[in-house]
Amino acid sequence: MKKDIAKVTFLPEGETIEVEKGVSLLEASTRAGVYVSSICGGDGICGKCRLIVKKGEVKTRPTTLLAREDIKRGYVLACQSEVVGDVEVEVPPESRIEGKILIDMDAQRFRALYAPMKEQVTFRYEPLVQKIYLELPPATLQDNISDHARLYREIRRHKKIENMQTGLKVIRGLPHILREAGWKVTTTLGVRGATTEVIQVEKGNTKDKNFAIAIDVGTSTVVAHLVNLNTSETIDAEATYNSQRVYGEEVTRRIIYAELKGADKLREVIVEDINNLISILVSRNNIRLNDIMGLVCVGNTAMIHFLLGLDPSRIRKEPYIPVCTYPPPIRAAEVGIKINPRGLLYSIPGIASWVGADITAGILATGIYQVEELCILIDIGTNGEIVIGNKEWMVCCSASAGPAFEGSGVKSGMRAGEGAIERLEITEQGKVRYTTIGGGRPRGICGSGLIDIMAQLFKAGFVDRAGRLRAGIDGRVREQDGEFEFLVVPASQTDGDDIVITQPDIENLLRAKAAIFAAVNILIKSLNIEFSDIKRVHIAGGFGNYLSKENAITLGLIPDIDREKIQFVGNTSILGAKMALLSRQAFDTCYKIAKRITYYDLITYPGYMDEFMSAKFLPHTNGNRFPSVTEMKKVEKGV
Amino acid sequence: MKKDIAKVTFLPEGETIEVEKGVSLLEASTRAGVYVSSICGGDGICGKCRLIVKKGEVKTRPTTLLAREDIKRGYVLACQSEVVGDVEVEVPPESRIEGKILIDMDAQRFRALYAPMKEQVTFRYEPLVQKIYLELPPATLQDNISDHARLYREIRRHKKIENMQTGLKVIRGLPHILREAGWKVTTTLGVRGATTEVIQVEKGNTKDKNFAIAIDVGTSTVVAHLVNLNTSETIDAEATYNSQRVYGEEVTRRIIYAELKGADKLREVIVEDINNLISILVSRNNIRLNDIMGLVCVGNTAMIHFLLGLDPSRIRKEPYIPVCTYPPPIRAAEVGIKINPRGLLYSIPGIASWVGADITAGILATGIYQVEELCILIDIGTNGEIVIGNKEWMVCCSASAGPAFEGSGVKSGMRAGEGAIERLEITEQGKVRYTTIGGGRPRGICGSGLIDIMAQLFKAGFVDRAGRLRAGIDGRVREQDGEFEFLVVPASQTDGDDIVITQPDIENLLRAKAAIFAAVNILIKSLNIEFSDIKRVHIAGGFGNYLSKENAITLGLIPDIDREKIQFVGNTSILGAKMALLSRQAFDTCYKIAKRITYYDLITYPGYMDEFMSAKFLPHTNGNRFPSVTEMKKVEKGV
Repeated sequence: MKKDIAKVTFLPEGETIEVEKGVSLLEASTRAGVYVSSICGGDGICGKCRLIVKKGEVKTRPTTLLAREDIKRGYVLACQSEVVGDVEVEVPPESRIEGKILIDMDAQRFRALYAPMKEQVTFRYEPLVQKIYLELPPATLQDNISDHARLYREIRRHKKIENMQTGLKVIRGLPHILREAGWKVTTTLGVRGATTEVIQVEKGNTKDKNFAIAIDVGTSTVVAHLVNLNTSETIDAEATYNSQRVYGEEVTRRIIYAELKGADKLREVIVEDINNLISILVSRNNIRLNDIMGLVCVGNTAMIHFLLGLDPSRIRKEPYIPVCTYPPPIRAAEVGIKINPRGLLYSIPGIASWVGADITAGILATGIYQVEELCILIDIGTNGEIVIGNKEWMVCCSASAGPAFEGSGVKSGMRAGEGAIERLEITEQGKVRYTTIGGGRPRGICGSGLIDIMAQLFKAGFVDRAGRLRAGIDGRVREQDGEFEFLVVPASQTDGDDIVITQPDIENLLRAKAAIFAAVNILIKSLNIEFSDIKRVHIAGGFGNYLSKENAITLGLIPDIDREKIQFVGNTSILGAKMALLSRQAFDTCYKIAKRITYYDLITYPGYMDEFMSAKFLPHTNGNRFPSVTEMKKVEKGV
Repeated sequence: MKKDIAKVTFLPEGETIEVEKGVSLLEASTRAGVYVSSICGGDGICGKCRLIVKKGEVKTRPTTLLAREDIKRGYVLACQSEVVGDVEVEVPPESRIEGKILIDMDAQRFRALYAPMKEQVTFRYEPLVQKIYLELPPATLQDNISDHARLYREIRRHKKIENMQTGLKVIRGLPHILREAGWKVTTTLGVRGATTEVIQVEKGNTKDKNFAIAIDVGTSTVVAHLVNLNTSETIDAEATYNSQRVYGEEVTRRIIYAELKGADKLREVIVEDINNLISILVSRNNIRLNDIMGLVCVGNTAMIHFLLGLDPSRIRKEPYIPVCTYPPPIRAAEVGIKINPRGLLYSIPGIASWVGADITAGILATGIYQVEELCILIDIGTNGEIVIGNKEWMVCCSASAGPAFEGSGVKSGMRAGEGAIERLEITEQGKVRYTTIGGGRPRGICGSGLIDIMAQLFKAGFVDRAGRLRAGIDGRVREQDGEFEFLVVPASQTDGDDIVITQPDIENLLRAKAAIFAAVNILIKSLNIEFSDIKRVHIAGGFGNYLSKENAITLGLIPDIDREKIQFVGNTSILGAKMALLSRQAFDTCYKIAKRITYYDLITYPGYMDEFMSAKFLPHTNGNRFPSVTEMKKVEKGV
């Protein structure tokens, strides 16, 4: 054996490779086809590429990313360790990409907030689009199959794929690319129903440039996450208000606009929003648009119709028929979305005209569809959707809440972003204490802050049970242009104007919470169950992360039940979309979920308006439904 | 039961349907989903829709299309028979579309020429593109699935299809079409590998407008057949010379041209040729281009490369690697072919750089791949391809013959079309007797005529064994511009100039026949078998239909063996293409054939040039190889 060569063995597989001394363990793992997680790409920053040296030595740079205990047990960072002689290293489960449990920024964040579910949802890692690096044997007189057949043969040596398809454009480019690249190419494969498409063939090894986007097209807010498909990590996220809002805050208004003026304009603006988000994400992360080969989108049925250019008009008219709830994968370019021109756009399947792909994704993410115990998922957005069920059965319904909880249609409202008041308390002295996202000066109030302020105003007696601001108690309640408003933060302390909550804001928020609570109540009644039968309450939405259970109950937004049962799960739509993006198995599960669930039409339910009117009070006309809130008010009043 | 309603029962299925009295049996059969063959569409012209009345009576118009015997046995024409009361009719096998044996004009024509094969090739009728008429239940609150899901559900009620796909454009059009059509639509399905594509959805019942095209892209000649997919019949055919000829008569020349100037021009002209042929076929048959949903093409590997815009340059250079031998189905519009814009172009799989899809189709059509006995297929075109084998093994090779047998590169040569001399004899008195295609005045000589004239000139002593014209025997051999030529028909009797055969023509024809015979000989030798081991000789080509076996042997084009073994099978490329078009099973079989066959490279065979030189004589330098020709010449000389 040559002096400058050493053997590296990866355990538990026992995969052995010879490398030049001086090569990093991370590089050696890549060459050996043993995939080790690394976000920073070898800069020693992320601390993900942990390996355990079992035999032999490596030369490793000092790092603060390993605990003393870990170092004693032999842990090293693969990217910071050079091979100096024969060595055996173990790849611990948490450092693996293949077969690992999906992890996710959101999931990790929310995992801190509640006990993990007993039935952890795990799916096999197999992204909808993936790259494979191939070294093809060069063509000879003896092995003279076509370039196309040679590519397929090599792909099948790496991956069991029965049905493959390739577009003519890719085939046309093959002879040149294969020979220019010395037969070493990276191919991108995309799932297309029962077949797998060879989307792209690139020269050399481009496996490290392997990104995709998940998009949640909300009625009010559009959220985009940039995902590294090699590591399953969400690299970055960005959100914006949906520019379609100028055509109507609510879905129905936009559909009517589309009927009168055509849906083209609505498609154009949402595509532009998405392109802007993608553009921000790629430039901020130094990624080429061409390296984004896939995009998964979720959203309610109308939003997906607008995005795909499907006529939405029958969604709002009896018998409420969507054009399509299982849109096929298409090229993103077909609707004008700018990623790699051959990149695919996947739509998560929807359920009905008024319960969309966002809920399918939410059910996937929360795992409701596979647990024994009865669960409820309340997704609070411009439309509120409610799912009740378990692995035996699931029903869902939808209620039009308006965009108040997304900070829209509220004077000082804003999206959950930098400078938004996300938590708020009114002290016994009547002082307002708050925290902002990012910690800087406040710019407005996001959903979680709005829930807090409503509950706190009620608790502190600034508003009565009907939500009317009481003037004269405190100078903070003032009259502006003939309407009362509560001064939350004066302009002197903000990044702009006074931050206020007005009487119309309060009415908007009450309508929103009433719509959702009424829907929950009716669904419970219709199923002939009690709140106490529900063992787990998932509250989803993009309204900010640290929602107060007490304040949400005081407001009458969620039922007054055992606090232990309540879990805030954040934006489950985008979380589910990312799970589907990272796992074909999860994507397939979405279809099973969408097929299994029963849609329950509230629009035709006779008692809905009564329920809605009762729920417009704080917390409800029927105080017995919220015993802890009634008790709290009694205590405060000194009864 | 209402008075004007009657029951019609179709046997042997027992399918019963109620129809208004006065409805034709053909219409009743369509409504019952029992498909009865009908080319003329109910005009009482084609005589295909024969049914047998078993019980009850129908009111039927007199027809000359049924024999007295048939009428006595209860036969009626379904389109000419009105339901007047309850009736039971039997659909005899020959009137069925589903499951029937593929029939074909060519096949029928050639069946007259030789005894049918013992192992008749039959495939299940299931065209690559097909139409289904659907009556969907209208959407209601109770049955409120999406338009897309409703369509799929209804298709699956008619046909077991696991994987379906639909393009966004078709989905976009669905809501409008379904409602405009009162939920009665015709859908066109196209096979796409493992999935079936919903290519088109049309209002109402358009099942009778269901056509496709088969195209044989030959180096010299392009042939197009128009097929009625409902009846499997070839309605019409048209051919033209390949306009690429101006860039080189032979494939290699054209590839060199493409390397120097780009392949675009070559693609454009062949697409234009194809579009012209299609245009002639549709206008002559009153068909709309939009009703042509599919096109199957065959051709040698280079021609398919040109057509699909694949770089052909490596076909001619060692190690002779094509870009693609299994091209995927694409939209015909993607290469500029004008049929329905969503119509699909299927390419039959090819075998190697120098043995193409035309030979796969030929093997399919002749059934060589599935018989016990050893067969040879000699496909005579600008490239001659030879296949030897049976169900156990198959080998093939290719030889560049030049276009002489297609009438090109020969002074008075022409395609086998109207006015071509297709048979010719020189009498003992030295008179030339001939017949033309269509029976009119001659315009030129096609392949079969050229074979005849060469053999007859030799037999009559006008040329010697080296193919030299002998001057002075007869005034018919004359000198023009320093070259001898034989006057076949003087201008006074033709539709133009003198029809002649010149010394260079003869040399061209000898080179062509020598190239083919040498290839046959080498393949036989390499396999270590004898001519006598071969039990069946299939001679394929577009050179005219009624080739003389004796003349072909006298010329030394085909081996001097038992005449019973020799079968002229016409253009097997187009025949195979049509079989694939009409049967998915046949199309799939093409892939099996292409994968099974072994390509034998003559270019690298050392003895080829010697074999070629020996074969350039009449019939061959070695007279013992052609004992019957040697015998004939002896008899003539009175030895």
